[in-house]
Amino acid sequence: MLRLKTTDADFATRFARLVKDRRESDENVSRDVQTIIEDVRLRGDEALAEYTQRFDGHLPQGDGWRIDAATCREAFDALAPDLRAALELAAQRIRTYHEAQLPQDRDYTDAAGVRLGAKWRAVDGAGLYVPGGRAAYPSSLLMNAIPAKVAGVGRLVVTTPTPKGEINPLVLAAAHLAGVDEVWRVGGAQAVAALAYGTKTMRPVDVITGPGNAWVAEAKRQLYGVVGIDMVAGPSEILVIADAKNDPQWIAADLLSQAEHDPAAQAILITNDAAFADQVIDMVGVEIALLPTARVAKASWETHGTVIVVESLDEAPALANALAAEHVEIATDDPDALFAQIRHAGSVFLGRMTPEAIGDYVAGPNHVLPTGRRARFSSGLSVLDFMKRTSFIAVSDASIGAVGPAAIALADAEGLAAHARSIELRLGI
Amino acid sequence: MLRLKTTDADFATRFARLVKDRRESDENVSRDVQTIIEDVRLRGDEALAEYTQRFDGHLPQGDGWRIDAATCREAFDALAPDLRAALELAAQRIRTYHEAQLPQDRDYTDAAGVRLGAKWRAVDGAGLYVPGGRAAYPSSLLMNAIPAKVAGVGRLVVTTPTPKGEINPLVLAAAHLAGVDEVWRVGGAQAVAALAYGTKTMRPVDVITGPGNAWVAEAKRQLYGVVGIDMVAGPSEILVIADAKNDPQWIAADLLSQAEHDPAAQAILITNDAAFADQVIDMVGVEIALLPTARVAKASWETHGTVIVVESLDEAPALANALAAEHVEIATDDPDALFAQIRHAGSVFLGRMTPEAIGDYVAGPNHVLPTGRRARFSSGLSVLDFMKRTSFIAVSDASIGAVGPAAIALADAEGLAAHARSIELRLGI
Repeated sequence: MLRLKTTDADFATRFARLVKDRRESDENVSRDVQTIIEDVRLRGDEALAEYTQRFDGHLPQGDGWRIDAATCREAFDALAPDLRAALELAAQRIRTYHEAQLPQDRDYTDAAGVRLGAKWRAVDGAGLYVPGGRAAYPSSLLMNAIPAKVAGVGRLVVTTPTPKGEINPLVLAAAHLAGVDEVWRVGGAQAVAALAYGTKTMRPVDVITGPGNAWVAEAKRQLYGVVGIDMVAGPSEILVIADAKNDPQWIAADLLSQAEHDPAAQAILITNDAAFADQVIDMVGVEIALLPTARVAKASWETHGTVIVVESLDEAPALANALAAEHVEIATDDPDALFAQIRHAGSVFLGRMTPEAIGDYVAGPNHVLPTGRRARFSSGLSVLDFMKRTSFIAVSDASIGAVGPAAIALADAEGLAAHARSIELRLGI
Repeated sequence: MLRLKTTDADFATRFARLVKDRRESDENVSRDVQTIIEDVRLRGDEALAEYTQRFDGHLPQGDGWRIDAATCREAFDALAPDLRAALELAAQRIRTYHEAQLPQDRDYTDAAGVRLGAKWRAVDGAGLYVPGGRAAYPSSLLMNAIPAKVAGVGRLVVTTPTPKGEINPLVLAAAHLAGVDEVWRVGGAQAVAALAYGTKTMRPVDVITGPGNAWVAEAKRQLYGVVGIDMVAGPSEILVIADAKNDPQWIAADLLSQAEHDPAAQAILITNDAAFADQVIDMVGVEIALLPTARVAKASWETHGTVIVVESLDEAPALANALAAEHVEIATDDPDALFAQIRHAGSVFLGRMTPEAIGDYVAGPNHVLPTGRRARFSSGLSVLDFMKRTSFIAVSDASIGAVGPAAIALADAEGLAAHARSIELRLGI
C-alpha cells in the first residue's frame, strides 16, 4: 500500500509514477492469438472443435455446441425467488436507463435549400463474450445484452466457454431474461474469431462486446476493424474522495469492493484528514479478514492500494482528472461541488449512501466502463455501441447553384478533376 | 471492369465474391510500425528527428518543428478570393451541421428516488494527422478539425510530414480557418506515436484522427487503447443506384469521382437497364480520357469497377446492404423509397442533383466515413468522436432501501462479498 501526502517534497514525482503505473498484463499473447484467429478464419468449425477440446477439455457434438432457449428458461425458472426478483429489478432499471440513450434521427432543409440529416440504425448482429468459471457474472450479461436489445439488434449471440462441460446456470438465467437469441459453448480467442468471421455453423456478427481474459481482449483488439468492439478493457479501479465525516468502515468496504475483483485492480483513497486515512487503512485490514475473496483483495490492496492525504479536498478534482479512474466515489456533504470540476471519470458515485457496488448491479447506468485512464477519451457501454449513423444529403435543381461552385473551387484546388466534373455537368458548365 | 446480372446463374457466387473482396493493403507493415512506436516511446524527440530525416529528407531545428500561427494566417490571407470564399462556406456549413450533433446531458431522479444521469465532456487534446504531398486535402483538415473544435477540444494539434521541407499552403490556410492550435512538421507512424505518448517537446493528446498511408493507419490501430482513434480506414468506394432516366455522362463522372482517389478505390453501378449500363460504361471511357487523374481512375475502374444489372431497382437495397458502401447515390425520381430500405451505408446522396462530390466539400455532413463494409457497425466522424460521457448515480438515505437489497442478492450470487458488504453496512445489516 502506497501512502502519499501532497505536501511531501517528492509528491509530484510519486503521483506521476502512480498515474503512469500500468497494471495491465504484458503477457505476450499477441502471436498466439494471431495464430488462433487465422486458424478459425481458414478452418472454421474444425479449428473451433480442436481449440475447445484443448482449452476447455470437452468436445460438444452436433447441436451440443448450442445451449437452447428451453435450457435457459429452465435455469431462470429454477432461480430462488429473491434472486429472480433481484435480476428482474436490475434488468428493468438497466433497460429504462438505456432506453433514454436512443438517439434522434435528423431530417431538415437548410437556408440554402439543401436537405440534410442522419438516420440511426442498429447493427444486424452482436456477439457478447461471457467468461466461464469464476468471472461469469450474470450482471455483466445484463449490462451488455440489454443495451444491444434496446438498440434494436436483431440477433444477439452469447459465446461462453464451458470448461469440462460445466455451465453457469445464473448466466443462462440472465440470458433468458435479456432475450439473448443464441448461446454457444465456445470461449477464448477462438470464440471471438468465430464471431468476427463466422463458420459453417455460426453466422458472423458485426459488433463484439463483453469482458474476457488477456487472450479474449487481444483477439478483440486484433479484430477491431473487421467488427466493431466496445473497448480495450483492463483491471478495475476505484478512486474514493472522502472527508473525515464518513464511517471509515464503509469507505474500507468500498475500496475492497474493487480490490476483490483482481490482484491487478486498484483502490485509491483521497482524503483531507490524516487521522481518517489511518482509520480507513486499519478498517481495510479488519474487513479483508472477513472476506472469502481475501486473497485477491489483499494482493490488490498491498500492491496497488494507495492513500493520498491532501490539504484540502479542493485539490482532489485535479488529481482525479489525472487518474481518470473507472469509478469515482465522492463521499462529502456537497459532492456536486467537486463533481463539477471532474472532467475525466467512467462513472461517479455521489454522496455517502452511494457505494460503487450499487452501480454494478441495479442503479441502471452501465457498469462496463473505461479503465486504465481511458476515461480521458472513452465512455461506458451504451446503446450507441450497437448502432451506427448514416448521414444523407439531397441537393435540388434550385440549391445546387448555392453550393456547387464552392465545391468545384475546392475540388480544383485539390486536383480532383472528376469531383469537379460531376458538379460542373449538373450546372451545365 | 466486372459486369454482373442478377439473372445470371452464378450471380450469387460472383456477388458474394465482390462483397468479400478485400481491397486493403496486405503490406506487412505491422512489425516496422511496432519498432517505430516503441522507439518514439522510449527515445522521444531523438527518434522523431532520426525518422524525419530518414523518411522526409530534412531535419528541422529547434522551433523549426512547429509551423507558427502567423505562417498559417499568411497562407490564408494569400488565398485567391474565390478559393477563400469556398473554404469559408465549407467551414461554416460543416460547423452548423456538427453543432447540432452536440449531445444533451441528463440529470433526473427516478421513481425509486435514485438520482441518475450522464455528463458529456470534450477530450482535453486531439491530434489530427494530415498526409503530405498529393493527399494533403484542406477539405479533410476542415472535416476533422471543425468537429473537434465544436466538441470543445481545448488543444487541437496537427501533424503533417513536409518532405524535403515542402509545405502545402492550402493545408495551412485551412488550419488557420479551423482554429488549429499547433502544427508540427512530422509524419508517418512516428508522428502518431509522438501524439499518443508525447515527447519532451510535444505534449500527448487523447484522440487521434485523420487519414494516412498504411504506416499511419497501422500505427493508429496499434495505439488504439492508449488513445482513442476515429476508425480503421481503407480505400474509398461509391455505389450508384440509377435508373435509365439519368444522363449517363453524369453517372460516369460520379463513378470516376471515387475512382480517381486511389487505384484501390471501387465504383459500383446498379441499374435496372442494360442499355443504360452500356451507355455509362462508354461514358466512363470518354470521361477518363479527359482527366488529369486518368492513370489512377483507369486503374481503379479496370480492376474494381463493377456494373450490376438488376431486373428491378427493388433488388438494389438488399445488394446495397450487403456491400455496406461508404457512399451510396440514389439517382431516381423517388430516392427516399429505396433509402428507407437501406440499413448499411456511410452516407447517402439522394436524387439526380446530388453528386457525391458535394458531400466531400460543402454539404455539411462529415466526409470521413466508414469504408470496407464497416458501415455495418460504424459511423462517419462526428463531435462524439471527440467527447466522452461520464455517468453518475446518487442514492439517498431514503432510496437505498429500494435498490440495496437486490444489489446484495446479486453480489452474493456472484461471490463478491465486499460488494455486498459495502451496501449491508449502509443498510445497517
